[in-house]
Amino acid sequence: MSPINRDLQKERDKATIDSSLITHILDGGIENTNYRHYVEKLLLEDPIFDEKDRYLIGPEEKYDLSVKRSLHLSKLLKKHNIKLDGDALLLISRTLNSDLALSIHSLMFMPTIERLGTNEQKAKWIKLASEFKIIGTYAQTELGHGTYLGGLETTATYDASTQQFVLNSPTLTSMKWWPGGLGLSCNYAVLLAQLVIQGKKYGPHAFLVKIRSLHNHQPLPGRQMGDIGLKWDYSTVDNGFLRLDNVRIPRDQMLMKYTKVAPDGTYSTSGNIKVTYGTMIAVRLTIIAFSFLELARALTIAVRYSAVRRQAPLEIGGEEVQILDYQTQQQKLFPGLATAYAFCFIHQKITKMYHKMEAEIMQDNFQSLPELHALCCGLKSFCTSTSAEFINICRFACGGQGLLMSSGLPSIYARFSASCTYEGDNTVMMLQLSRYLLKCLRKAQEGVTIEGSASYLSDISADQLTTYDDCWTQPQFLCDAFKIRSYKLVMAAGQKIGVLLASGKTPGQAWNESLVQLVNCGEAHMQYFVLSGFVERLRELQTMQSIQSKLNDLCQLFGLYYITKHRADFMMDGYLTQEQISEATEIYLKVLSSIRPEAVSLVDAFDYRDECVHSTLGCYDGNAYQRLYEFAKRGARNQSPVHETYDKYLVQLIKGMPSKL
Amino acid sequence: MSPINRDLQKERDKATIDSSLITHILDGGIENTNYRHYVEKLLLEDPIFDEKDRYLIGPEEKYDLSVKRSLHLSKLLKKHNIKLDGDALLLISRTLNSDLALSIHSLMFMPTIERLGTNEQKAKWIKLASEFKIIGTYAQTELGHGTYLGGLETTATYDASTQQFVLNSPTLTSMKWWPGGLGLSCNYAVLLAQLVIQGKKYGPHAFLVKIRSLHNHQPLPGRQMGDIGLKWDYSTVDNGFLRLDNVRIPRDQMLMKYTKVAPDGTYSTSGNIKVTYGTMIAVRLTIIAFSFLELARALTIAVRYSAVRRQAPLEIGGEEVQILDYQTQQQKLFPGLATAYAFCFIHQKITKMYHKMEAEIMQDNFQSLPELHALCCGLKSFCTSTSAEFINICRFACGGQGLLMSSGLPSIYARFSASCTYEGDNTVMMLQLSRYLLKCLRKAQEGVTIEGSASYLSDISADQLTTYDDCWTQPQFLCDAFKIRSYKLVMAAGQKIGVLLASGKTPGQAWNESLVQLVNCGEAHMQYFVLSGFVERLRELQTMQSIQSKLNDLCQLFGLYYITKHRADFMMDGYLTQEQISEATEIYLKVLSSIRPEAVSLVDAFDYRDECVHSTLGCYDGNAYQRLYEFAKRGARNQSPVHETYDKYLVQLIKGMPSKL
Repeated sequence: MSPINRDLQKERDKATIDSSLITHILDGGIENTNYRHYVEKLLLEDPIFDEKDRYLIGPEEKYDLSVKRSLHLSKLLKKHNIKLDGDALLLISRTLNSDLALSIHSLMFMPTIERLGTNEQKAKWIKLASEFKIIGTYAQTELGHGTYLGGLETTATYDASTQQFVLNSPTLTSMKWWPGGLGLSCNYAVLLAQLVIQGKKYGPHAFLVKIRSLHNHQPLPGRQMGDIGLKWDYSTVDNGFLRLDNVRIPRDQMLMKYTKVAPDGTYSTSGNIKVTYGTMIAVRLTIIAFSFLELARALTIAVRYSAVRRQAPLEIGGEEVQILDYQTQQQKLFPGLATAYAFCFIHQKITKMYHKMEAEIMQDNFQSLPELHALCCGLKSFCTSTSAEFINICRFACGGQGLLMSSGLPSIYARFSASCTYEGDNTVMMLQLSRYLLKCLRKAQEGVTIEGSASYLSDISADQLTTYDDCWTQPQFLCDAFKIRSYKLVMAAGQKIGVLLASGKTPGQAWNESLVQLVNCGEAHMQYFVLSGFVERLRELQTMQSIQSKLNDLCQLFGLYYITKHRADFMMDGYLTQEQISEATEIYLKVLSSIRPEAVSLVDAFDYRDECVHSTLGCYDGNAYQRLYEFAKRGARNQSPVHETYDKYLVQLIKGMPSKL
Repeated sequence: MSPINRDLQKERDKATIDSSLITHILDGGIENTNYRHYVEKLLLEDPIFDEKDRYLIGPEEKYDLSVKRSLHLSKLLKKHNIKLDGDALLLISRTLNSDLALSIHSLMFMPTIERLGTNEQKAKWIKLASEFKIIGTYAQTELGHGTYLGGLETTATYDASTQQFVLNSPTLTSMKWWPGGLGLSCNYAVLLAQLVIQGKKYGPHAFLVKIRSLHNHQPLPGRQMGDIGLKWDYSTVDNGFLRLDNVRIPRDQMLMKYTKVAPDGTYSTSGNIKVTYGTMIAVRLTIIAFSFLELARALTIAVRYSAVRRQAPLEIGGEEVQILDYQTQQQKLFPGLATAYAFCFIHQKITKMYHKMEAEIMQDNFQSLPELHALCCGLKSFCTSTSAEFINICRFACGGQGLLMSSGLPSIYARFSASCTYEGDNTVMMLQLSRYLLKCLRKAQEGVTIEGSASYLSDISADQLTTYDDCWTQPQFLCDAFKIRSYKLVMAAGQKIGVLLASGKTPGQAWNESLVQLVNCGEAHMQYFVLSGFVERLRELQTMQSIQSKLNDLCQLFGLYYITKHRADFMMDGYLTQEQISEATEIYLKVLSSIRPEAVSLVDAFDYRDECVHSTLGCYDGNAYQRLYEFAKRGARNQSPVHETYDKYLVQLIKGMPSKL
């Protein structure tokens, strides 16, 4: 290993906190950190996961490697007795930073059969799937239909005479489009289709459909399929398309735990179908975790590089300063740093809430479901949009080098920002939360006491709305300000919809004409919720005072960043005065500079190994320039001193040159 | 050609404006439109520029094609007597949407020799360069040194005994890094290095350095060079690195129009070196033009696709609606649409100002230079950042399909967003404008009348600061509001710096601790300046009332968008009240819906041919789904029904399957 860059070493020497203690907090306990280190070692010492050519190989080679690694991984996990559940997938993805070709098999195909299959169906299919005897995908999205499930066009028509479902893609737009692994790898799909029995539509249901031969992998008759083509830096997965033409499957390949079609075509339902929301919530929890992890990865790169990079002196004739010393650079990076910490803590909190709900549901108690569903929709939207934005800022903050693939930042951004769209477009997701808030408001106005995160809708008193004790250093005061703001925005949206309805608009029109404000109240609620989660977590750290005080700076920064960003909201009805806002801005800028000396430790605490950062700029030793140069020399274009384009094209121009030049 | 998509046809049928009339306005006259059509035809009918494989080929093939096309283009232009100046380059780039390998040769290598070379130097080198007998790059940036020119480390030490300069890269960070064409294609460079004579440093000067043999293209001794590696979707250009080790060049290869080194080493300067600012301004004008052009391209895709894509009904059980009907979709796309128009008009305005200044400079009158330089820095920053953001919003607004390379949007974003960094990092650029504004403020406070865009600093009266007649439909009133806001922000920044200096901070510290506010005043001035430009342009259209009224909607939207976004600024000192802001928000939302029926025409007016849009989603006929599907089928992965990864890996898993499945 090369010696540590001098500037970076100085940063670490003068930091007042022990970053490894923070690592344990972020991991949720030292035992989790140790387990993570164990898995990292297992994977990263295996040569198959070596990624030193990551930014040199093309999309086809990436897919090939990805299939190879998927299979190897499943053997490795089996050997070491690691179950491929959500937590393991998270840890593996954090370590490999690479979407594996067959991940939908474990992440969605099997869990859907687990949730929606009868015991017999599970006994048969889960066994085959867990041994990879069949490889499955989850086929919901269609070329013309995404977030709105009701619009799906694929049909599954029951034929009682043969006891089969006949599957069809009646139009171009009904073609399945996007499912991961569908293009080339999978031979089975859990497929969503509109169930039709004797001409009557019953809405979307899930079917198990064989798509390729298990003997030679050829697409079966009636299935036209393939890969949907290159995506933005996401070539490890073969997202695919599938058109179905009178494909027949036996009756017992509809997943029938909650809905049944009897041999004679009688349709029935049983149990609480709401339990299926659990899968969606679990997937969104994973996405929230990634919002933290990918932002942390980007910050590790940008903060370290900003400590190494020097550019322009502050005073004429002075020494060039580390760019991290510029207030504008701090303003770019530190709100993101505070946000990464906030997202880690909110993920810890919402995961606890999820486990509590799962236990309640086992007792047939569904009371936590509506709020948790709404919060997960809102967080999915808020966390992914916010992290994507800050990751992009990290990229810009690294200047020209941030445009080099070897910096890692273009790739982190391109890949992560996709999560603003998949599993529910962020605008639609945020509106799910807003819809929940409006429902709570209506109940509160009917005198019902609201429980949970939106309790303010029923318990805020009039005097809280107009007075504010400014106490910027007390996180609880910041929380109150966010709560009041959220309350006002929800009230205003509710009022607006009421006025529109009273003026004769239909509910749909009234809702549509309020969308912009509705999205704003969802966001406001999320900022309040995330900040509250941060404050709660800080309270738990009272025994670790030095760390608590540093994290308190981050928490304050998170609050002040959004207060200054949305200051007009906080000034509504004079809740905060112009003077208070100016004061908040000044304190915000001061907090930036108080975080400055700890910034490197605070990203070191994310504890990313160099092999997981994949960046010439962001390694622990800070030798960014050496790595940029060494990496460049390995490029395909530098393998001979004269490139072939010279003989092919340039020589024609240059010939006939005066020889004396 | 396939029939037009029904929804899109309806949009065009019900539009009230003739989009071709607007096209002429955007082009700056019908004769420009005709000339553009002529050049487009010339290029696009030439099979060498066929781009149907654009999203299928890899980076090395792209570079190969790019060199081939560069050479072909130069022949074609010669044949048709088209001079490759700034305007022509703009038109060609708009048409081909492809950065050509050798463009730095025409865009920077030759212009620098033109500006900085003596008549003898020009006679010799421009002739060779214009015939492509030599191929040049412009080598300024170093691995460790970007925007801050003073930090360059490469040295050019004069050796009077041989009348040569000896060039060296004394450190790793002094290596030239990024120059376009340097990696593989060029054999000459205009290179910036610190001039040293007898141990004394004279700052950066420009030298003509031969880097490769003209006979076999081998790097010459003492030059270690190559390509810097893959960039974010920018593989057509071979950006390179170069380390110099005692490279000797004759004395007459320093460009000596303004600075001379005599044979005995005597250093002298002559003429007004400020004239060199002209090159930087010209390059920035081009970047401002691209901010319009690339945003327009992205909007063409996103608006057309949003008219074609239907998703979810407004009322339960209703028909799915065009996503363009959702208020949130309008809020995503229409402010960008207004901004594209605004940027087109401000580019027209600033170009006129530039030509006026060039004429004045010929008369040795430099009085317009400081403001124009500052405005171009500010516009470069504001326009590129804003367009990049809106292009990204266009991408998100197309949902999952916006992640497919074939949509064109990832590529437009990745390539365009680089302009936020090159030719001066946007934060640094904006601060150049802020520095100018602060200078003006100081002068105004000394009683000097300020001319030009910042004249408000000396002519605003106290009563303007507190009263506002709300008249949201009158663009001039909006302009006034922006002017007042800008005035207040500049005043506040000036005051803050004053306080910091009075408290004993050094000028550098005071400046650094005010950076965030300084950036804000620059942005505020830019919004004011761009809005004023829009309003001026509208006034010129009084004879075309129907068009004026539609463009007036866009102008209003541009103003109202920024007022609502930065509403806290406008509420400062009660200039706008909370009630006025609420009213502005309501009107803003109304303007969105009044633009809705014209949205398709307003992007049709950008007049992009399908071959220039390069998008499966954005073609004129709106057949997005067909194109997505047809394109997918052409992908490398779909060339055989069973992919090779089956035999290599998957077969191991599946073998031993129960045969009855």
